[in-house]
Amino acid sequence: MIEDKNPSRTSISDLGEFGLIDHLTKNFKIKHSSTVKSIGDDAAVISFENECVITTDLMVEGVHFDLSYMPLKHLGYKAVMVNLSDVYAMNATPKQITVSIAVSNRFPLEALEDLYEGIETAAKIYNIDVIGGDTTSSNKGLFISITALGHALKEDIVYRDGAQDNDLIVLSGDIGAAYLGLQVLEREKQVFKVNPQSQPDLSHYSYIIERQLKPEARKDIPELLKQLEVKPTSMIDISDGLSSEILHLCKHSKVGAVIYEEKIPLDPTVISTCEEFNMDSTTIALNGGEDYELLFTIKQEDYSKIKANPNINVIGHITQEKEVVHLITRGNTKVEITAQGWNSLHKNKEN
Amino acid sequence: MIEDKNPSRTSISDLGEFGLIDHLTKNFKIKHSSTVKSIGDDAAVISFENECVITTDLMVEGVHFDLSYMPLKHLGYKAVMVNLSDVYAMNATPKQITVSIAVSNRFPLEALEDLYEGIETAAKIYNIDVIGGDTTSSNKGLFISITALGHALKEDIVYRDGAQDNDLIVLSGDIGAAYLGLQVLEREKQVFKVNPQSQPDLSHYSYIIERQLKPEARKDIPELLKQLEVKPTSMIDISDGLSSEILHLCKHSKVGAVIYEEKIPLDPTVISTCEEFNMDSTTIALNGGEDYELLFTIKQEDYSKIKANPNINVIGHITQEKEVVHLITRGNTKVEITAQGWNSLHKNKEN
Repeated sequence: MIEDKNPSRTSISDLGEFGLIDHLTKNFKIKHSSTVKSIGDDAAVISFENECVITTDLMVEGVHFDLSYMPLKHLGYKAVMVNLSDVYAMNATPKQITVSIAVSNRFPLEALEDLYEGIETAAKIYNIDVIGGDTTSSNKGLFISITALGHALKEDIVYRDGAQDNDLIVLSGDIGAAYLGLQVLEREKQVFKVNPQSQPDLSHYSYIIERQLKPEARKDIPELLKQLEVKPTSMIDISDGLSSEILHLCKHSKVGAVIYEEKIPLDPTVISTCEEFNMDSTTIALNGGEDYELLFTIKQEDYSKIKANPNINVIGHITQEKEVVHLITRGNTKVEITAQGWNSLHKNKEN
Repeated sequence: MIEDKNPSRTSISDLGEFGLIDHLTKNFKIKHSSTVKSIGDDAAVISFENECVITTDLMVEGVHFDLSYMPLKHLGYKAVMVNLSDVYAMNATPKQITVSIAVSNRFPLEALEDLYEGIETAAKIYNIDVIGGDTTSSNKGLFISITALGHALKEDIVYRDGAQDNDLIVLSGDIGAAYLGLQVLEREKQVFKVNPQSQPDLSHYSYIIERQLKPEARKDIPELLKQLEVKPTSMIDISDGLSSEILHLCKHSKVGAVIYEEKIPLDPTVISTCEEFNMDSTTIALNGGEDYELLFTIKQEDYSKIKANPNINVIGHITQEKEVVHLITRGNTKVEITAQGWNSLHKNKEN
């Protein structure tokens, strides 16, 4: 849908690989003195005064995104966010990214310009240098591989393995919205297939759709924690859903956890849309994914420093029970959260 | 062809994403103290004492490789080489890589094991830590995105932009073989299609086929140059063919160049196979690509230090004529090499 709407089409092959890279990155400005050499040599050069944090994500058309409702500008922005989120989850500051794309000949130059406009916007807002990458053709579809580099003092880096018994489990923002946004977009896609003239009013869903199409990485949280003088004992970002992430964290830290259903922060739109879709909001919050919030643990004595902050919520605590995670439901029932969280929880609810 | 020959097939989905990464990387050993944290967190952590050199390449099935004649083990090895070559071309030492793959469900686990065995072999021989990556599904084909990190003293890094008038142009090894190897493999593929029972004798072509299927990055050249106390004024690796690379180098350095046809190093197999295919060996050497040799410039006064070395050859010199590259043919004709080197040279030859 995206590329067909555009009346002006320039074939990518007109530019050639080097012309294409030059064209797409011509507006990118270098912001950091640590970027010694950017695009234009065999490799980029970066100067690290402290530790280097590095993460990479590969996004595939038809697997991670559907261009029938994902505008390319948003896709570029989101592809950057996904990576920055991982850097923030290490309590580090992202400063450089590389961007590689493989693209089929169904995409005209104008489509790639939109994609790179989204990347550029993200780089501008999050103060990132785009330092290199690779551009190639694919036989089918669009692939985006981004690598992000973060800078941090060694003593500031937070891993997944530091959570200890009695630590509080804290979550930024609210969760479940990105997954529900996807459900609304999928439903509208089906409606559109049947009736291409339909003009749906999605204003009621704007929050959850924006969470799906244009998520923001929590740049503010590491900054806030520094300001509050709280160093998390462990941290991870919510890309695959709360239950999956808490299990990772417990596995690496060799601890267990208890999460309270009533403490899981949900946006009112999530609750109302769950009712409309006849879905259980806790199941969505636990298993939805793509929220890019930060999940972290802090020492009990740091509670007073964070309790007044509306951006973060304590949702449970760490236990000694190795790798076992329990949910305490509103009805005060104890349910084990397993790696197959979705199914088992769902089954429990049906039983 | 590759995956159908294997009688044992384990579906990737049996393992899940995290199980798959754990399984494929379980034999990978960390070799460098600079690798502070490897696979298993939101990001890897590296400690750089000096500058960080970073490069990334994306390889796409059907564009960069054909699995009907490229064994997956070799593909894994080559995908690493392509990246390391860029790091050596900066006169840096590669120490870490990330490996991301997108793979369709036609690949069983055993195929990915082969791919990772090639990656592991490369990492072992070239002393590299595999520190992270991403594994996802694709709707069609195999995609490999590798990012390599190199370490170097700031004063040792060699860029593309340092070549100066009268500098000598030096090339490691010989060129053209990788492209010709591809031609032989393509021909055999066509023969195989017609007669699947054919058992071709490719022993005559072993050098050029190995250059295509299992190239080596020139780890030895930066070491040799250090030993000889020669710092190149500029350097680039031969991935797209000599003419393309010398033009890049001249463009960045704002100089021109003269290359002597008789000085271009060719393996005897390249010459004999060119005769067989009725191709011009100089055209192949100039435009073939994928040789992963290093092209660099040195000051005239360093000539005595390198002249005795059989691994490197002086093939020309830098001129003042901005961005203009000439080839002096064996018949002493001056031919301009342009960005469309292949066509224009070919046309010149026909006229």
